[in-house]
Amino acid sequence: MIRPPFLSTGDTVALAATGRKVSSAQMQKAMEVLSSWGLNVLQTPHLFNEAHGYLAGNDETRLRDFQQMLDDKNVHAIFCARGGYGTTRILDCLDFTSLLEKPKWIVGFSDVTALHLKLLQLRIESIHGTMPILYPSAGVEPSLESLKKILFGEDFTLQATFHKANRMGQATGPILGGNLSLLTDALGTSCEPDTVGKILVIEEIDEYKYRLDRMLTHLRRAGKLDHLAGLIIGHMTDIKDPDPAFGEEIAAMVMDKIDDTPYPVAFNFPIGHENPNLAWRHGSLMSLDVNPTGSMLQPATGLLREAYIIGPGSKK
Amino acid sequence: MIRPPFLSTGDTVALAATGRKVSSAQMQKAMEVLSSWGLNVLQTPHLFNEAHGYLAGNDETRLRDFQQMLDDKNVHAIFCARGGYGTTRILDCLDFTSLLEKPKWIVGFSDVTALHLKLLQLRIESIHGTMPILYPSAGVEPSLESLKKILFGEDFTLQATFHKANRMGQATGPILGGNLSLLTDALGTSCEPDTVGKILVIEEIDEYKYRLDRMLTHLRRAGKLDHLAGLIIGHMTDIKDPDPAFGEEIAAMVMDKIDDTPYPVAFNFPIGHENPNLAWRHGSLMSLDVNPTGSMLQPATGLLREAYIIGPGSKK
Repeated sequence: MIRPPFLSTGDTVALAATGRKVSSAQMQKAMEVLSSWGLNVLQTPHLFNEAHGYLAGNDETRLRDFQQMLDDKNVHAIFCARGGYGTTRILDCLDFTSLLEKPKWIVGFSDVTALHLKLLQLRIESIHGTMPILYPSAGVEPSLESLKKILFGEDFTLQATFHKANRMGQATGPILGGNLSLLTDALGTSCEPDTVGKILVIEEIDEYKYRLDRMLTHLRRAGKLDHLAGLIIGHMTDIKDPDPAFGEEIAAMVMDKIDDTPYPVAFNFPIGHENPNLAWRHGSLMSLDVNPTGSMLQPATGLLREAYIIGPGSKK
Repeated sequence: MIRPPFLSTGDTVALAATGRKVSSAQMQKAMEVLSSWGLNVLQTPHLFNEAHGYLAGNDETRLRDFQQMLDDKNVHAIFCARGGYGTTRILDCLDFTSLLEKPKWIVGFSDVTALHLKLLQLRIESIHGTMPILYPSAGVEPSLESLKKILFGEDFTLQATFHKANRMGQATGPILGGNLSLLTDALGTSCEPDTVGKILVIEEIDEYKYRLDRMLTHLRRAGKLDHLAGLIIGHMTDIKDPDPAFGEEIAAMVMDKIDDTPYPVAFNFPIGHENPNLAWRHGSLMSLDVNPTGSMLQPATGLLREAYIIGPGSKK
């Protein structure tokens, strides 16, 4: 994997929107926070474009804006402004030549999972973490602290409280994933991830339980849960279950899909659509430890790690 | 394709549930209608099983019931009682050996699209049409009339009114598809359909516009819209568009995904979650004609047709 160079004070970074519309007011807090980290913050030329009801500008505009940030040698990181939907409409038209020549961090989660999966195919690490529109949200501080650490090259360990459905064990492997909807949305496309030997992360928001089950079943039927190194379940936020209730607990629903597998499984991870949504490097080599006191996810150490990373970020 | 034998008066058929729960009262009308067609109607042993909140019994029960009907040589057709969700939870565990030895019609739509796609892989024709729980619905008569004709071996032509977004033309090819959610749900699995040279049908219910767009984009990204013979859009029922409105009409949303393709496209087809939901043979060779007065879908005629069909149904 190619690790982009970590940030330094004085670097220029960009806010861009690949999905849903954002307003200038919604970006205010992010401008302040990123500036307070010593970064020069650029907004893409059409960040507040009104050319589409839902999307942050039409496809052409969002595509051109994002491409410009990929190509701009002075931009050291791109922060995706918010999620929603829209990234897959432009994803296959982006040209990643500049990024491969001069890697930079791309940051986001939720709808941005689609972009992470594309970058994984290109063997470029990216950052799964909170997004500018959420910087003003209550309890965001640990999310931002973890993001800052990751961006500036400090290793960061994610810890999760014990969950009775956890499956104990240790695993080391490249980590990937994010939003469950976007994971299933990549199946059958050129961005479908190879999950063999990987640590898979899933989180979800605002779905009916039966849909959650459908997506988990989809992953299983596509063979994506068969040979994981480990499975991490993040926030399952606002999962709805009207009458008739689906009749299964979320944890049981997950475990039922993988009852013939041996790998460790950790629930309760602080990843997803709630705070804290702690940052991690998508595609990086991580170690997961699930034990009776809780779970821990941290960058893999030792020789294996050195062998795995190439590119500028490995030097720091 | 293997065409099961058409029904005759006196045949035994079965009601089975692969997905959501049904009650005895909900099946009453279907019992009456199918009996009035001269059929002996069997209910699977656990059709009204209460072992799961949402599903018509737990997976094991639904699986065993459906398997029993597949294996029962006296059963000439299986009517899936209703849709919802649940078919994919048992689909990969069903054993179709008996069905390949003694083909029979399997009837349904919506969630049953998953089963149709599996049968297509097995090269067995099936029937996309209304389901028992909807037999009491208002305006169901044409749906039932078409279903009866198809089941008893009478050719049936589906006609659609003109739509301004239609793309004129003629196409002949095997037909497949149904519910858009279930089509995308099959991508990356062993049931992912090959759509090259096929007439693809899509219909949807109760989705947000942005999700509809996401699924269409998924099909496009998976290459499933590239080389169709033709595209048919059925009912788009209760599509929701809250604030901010997505900003695209459904027809434009569809056409945008296939702007670089040449094949005919027909909207307004009486297929899906409204009445009339006219019946057609999934996997069969059909001809589509889209012209300035409307559209027409009918079984292909002539030598091509004879060459395409094998199995008992070809004799009638």
